[in-house]
Amino acid sequence: MAEPAAAAPPVDRLAIVGLGLIGSSIARAARRYGLARDIVAIDGDEAVRDRVRDLAIADRVTGDAAEGVEGADLVVLCVPVGAMGPVAEAMASRLKPGAVVSDVGSVKGSVVAAIQPHLPDGVALVPGHPIAGTEYSGPDAGFSTLFAGRWCILTPPDGTPDAATERVRALWEGMGALVETMSPEHHDLVLAITSHVPHLIAYNIVGTAADLEAVTQSEVIKFSASGFRDFTRIAASDPTMWRDIFLNNRDAVLEMLGRFNEDLAALAKAVRWGDGDALHAMFTRTRAIRRSIVALGQDTAAPDFGRPRPEEDGGKA
Amino acid sequence: MAEPAAAAPPVDRLAIVGLGLIGSSIARAARRYGLARDIVAIDGDEAVRDRVRDLAIADRVTGDAAEGVEGADLVVLCVPVGAMGPVAEAMASRLKPGAVVSDVGSVKGSVVAAIQPHLPDGVALVPGHPIAGTEYSGPDAGFSTLFAGRWCILTPPDGTPDAATERVRALWEGMGALVETMSPEHHDLVLAITSHVPHLIAYNIVGTAADLEAVTQSEVIKFSASGFRDFTRIAASDPTMWRDIFLNNRDAVLEMLGRFNEDLAALAKAVRWGDGDALHAMFTRTRAIRRSIVALGQDTAAPDFGRPRPEEDGGKA
Repeated sequence: MAEPAAAAPPVDRLAIVGLGLIGSSIARAARRYGLARDIVAIDGDEAVRDRVRDLAIADRVTGDAAEGVEGADLVVLCVPVGAMGPVAEAMASRLKPGAVVSDVGSVKGSVVAAIQPHLPDGVALVPGHPIAGTEYSGPDAGFSTLFAGRWCILTPPDGTPDAATERVRALWEGMGALVETMSPEHHDLVLAITSHVPHLIAYNIVGTAADLEAVTQSEVIKFSASGFRDFTRIAASDPTMWRDIFLNNRDAVLEMLGRFNEDLAALAKAVRWGDGDALHAMFTRTRAIRRSIVALGQDTAAPDFGRPRPEEDGGKA
Repeated sequence: MAEPAAAAPPVDRLAIVGLGLIGSSIARAARRYGLARDIVAIDGDEAVRDRVRDLAIADRVTGDAAEGVEGADLVVLCVPVGAMGPVAEAMASRLKPGAVVSDVGSVKGSVVAAIQPHLPDGVALVPGHPIAGTEYSGPDAGFSTLFAGRWCILTPPDGTPDAATERVRALWEGMGALVETMSPEHHDLVLAITSHVPHLIAYNIVGTAADLEAVTQSEVIKFSASGFRDFTRIAASDPTMWRDIFLNNRDAVLEMLGRFNEDLAALAKAVRWGDGDALHAMFTRTRAIRRSIVALGQDTAAPDFGRPRPEEDGGKA
């Protein structure tokens, strides 16, 4: 990870719109690693602004997007996907020539379509998506190392000046992230399978369990350690953010969900007919993917995610 | 958790058949907390027996189940569900009168049916299922605090002497587990939704992702932190154990899977038609279940399961 540089920071004035988990983490990291001379925090929610002032993670705090982006050479929108268009429209007239606008939305095609039309000539759009987060929300949930060792995908539309992309890349690399670029369409397909469908499924099974009449909710909760509880963490993510993701990446989600359902039907058939060989073969090949994820540093190899035990020595006899 | 008792241990001779993750954890915990005077480890695999001897977690190690259970007042079968019947048959003739046989299988109805017919008169069966484990297998994966604060479900068939159930309960409570009893049938229904269907779904989505042609496997692995990686941990569990679970709890699994599919169809419809209110309502109510699980101590509230970050201070600015 980058340490505070003696040279000029890659960003002069950084404006962050939306100080939730991601926005507040960017503010903390940008200051900690010396990535911006000046940080402006913009949020429409007075309670959030008050917390940001108390936390002292920005140089200036305002509720007015247009006023807040004045003089900024990089503006990062950290609001739910459905709010990107209105925010872009509100601030567009005050963006300075040469400014770069970025975002952290989990869907890229619809975000480009929502933001791009509002931007004046001479302002570049470099959409971004950090693959990092937790199930918690709000300015108190953020921390400066959230992006360290995690990937950030940039999806600059055709014709974006290289210098604009490099400015955004410098911010993310400065926060310790690994940067990859791809088209917005490909991003949306990749994330549909690695993120959106898994979340939909997790939300779904937690809902199914809550509705059973033969099994009580207290039994579901008590015996959750058998697999179910990992789904509940995912299903505890921010509802507004996830509603917007599904509304804005509909086609890719439904395509991937269709494939998931075909595969699940085949697996259910193997269960119904007692095809042990098919089940064993399927359960064996999925182990290799897990090993690759741990090897690549995208997860811990600690058993059970290293959840704390009553005695931290692990009790090895 | 119980500390070593000055009184006589609740079990005189404890025989454990199968020294994998669960069996070796029982051996470690029984010794550490003084729950048996004498521990016999029985395993058909020579490599496992060698490891158990090296680890020194039993008083005696043998490959012969019949010889190993002689004189034992409690025998715990820790083999895959499909192997329970053959093991019971092999050891039955040498069980001493008054002995209690238990197991740790993840399915209870079929395990009772597989073991019960082999047991001689005067030997009681008290099936058990500890809701604890990790994605790792084998004698090296075990540890003595695996069961601390976790639930263990006992499913004694009608007519089981209370004293037999109490002997098994004493073992589990001595290892720090919380014990609950229910019928084998109800157990299988509860576990179908809290464990078996979640595992089937996790295996399934990891398989779906591996088969895509438009998204490379390396992209799936790189960007797994967006939700997918939690499924891969579950899908890295022991294939033989899980094959046997699905072959032996078929009806309950297919019933719960049917409900899951109905709910998923409704959710997919909300995505297709852009019904944001329905999505938001669904994503909101699942948060309450997560909170209950954390409140009950069945999971950590640490963000992202407390996965270690490059800087352990969390980087709060």
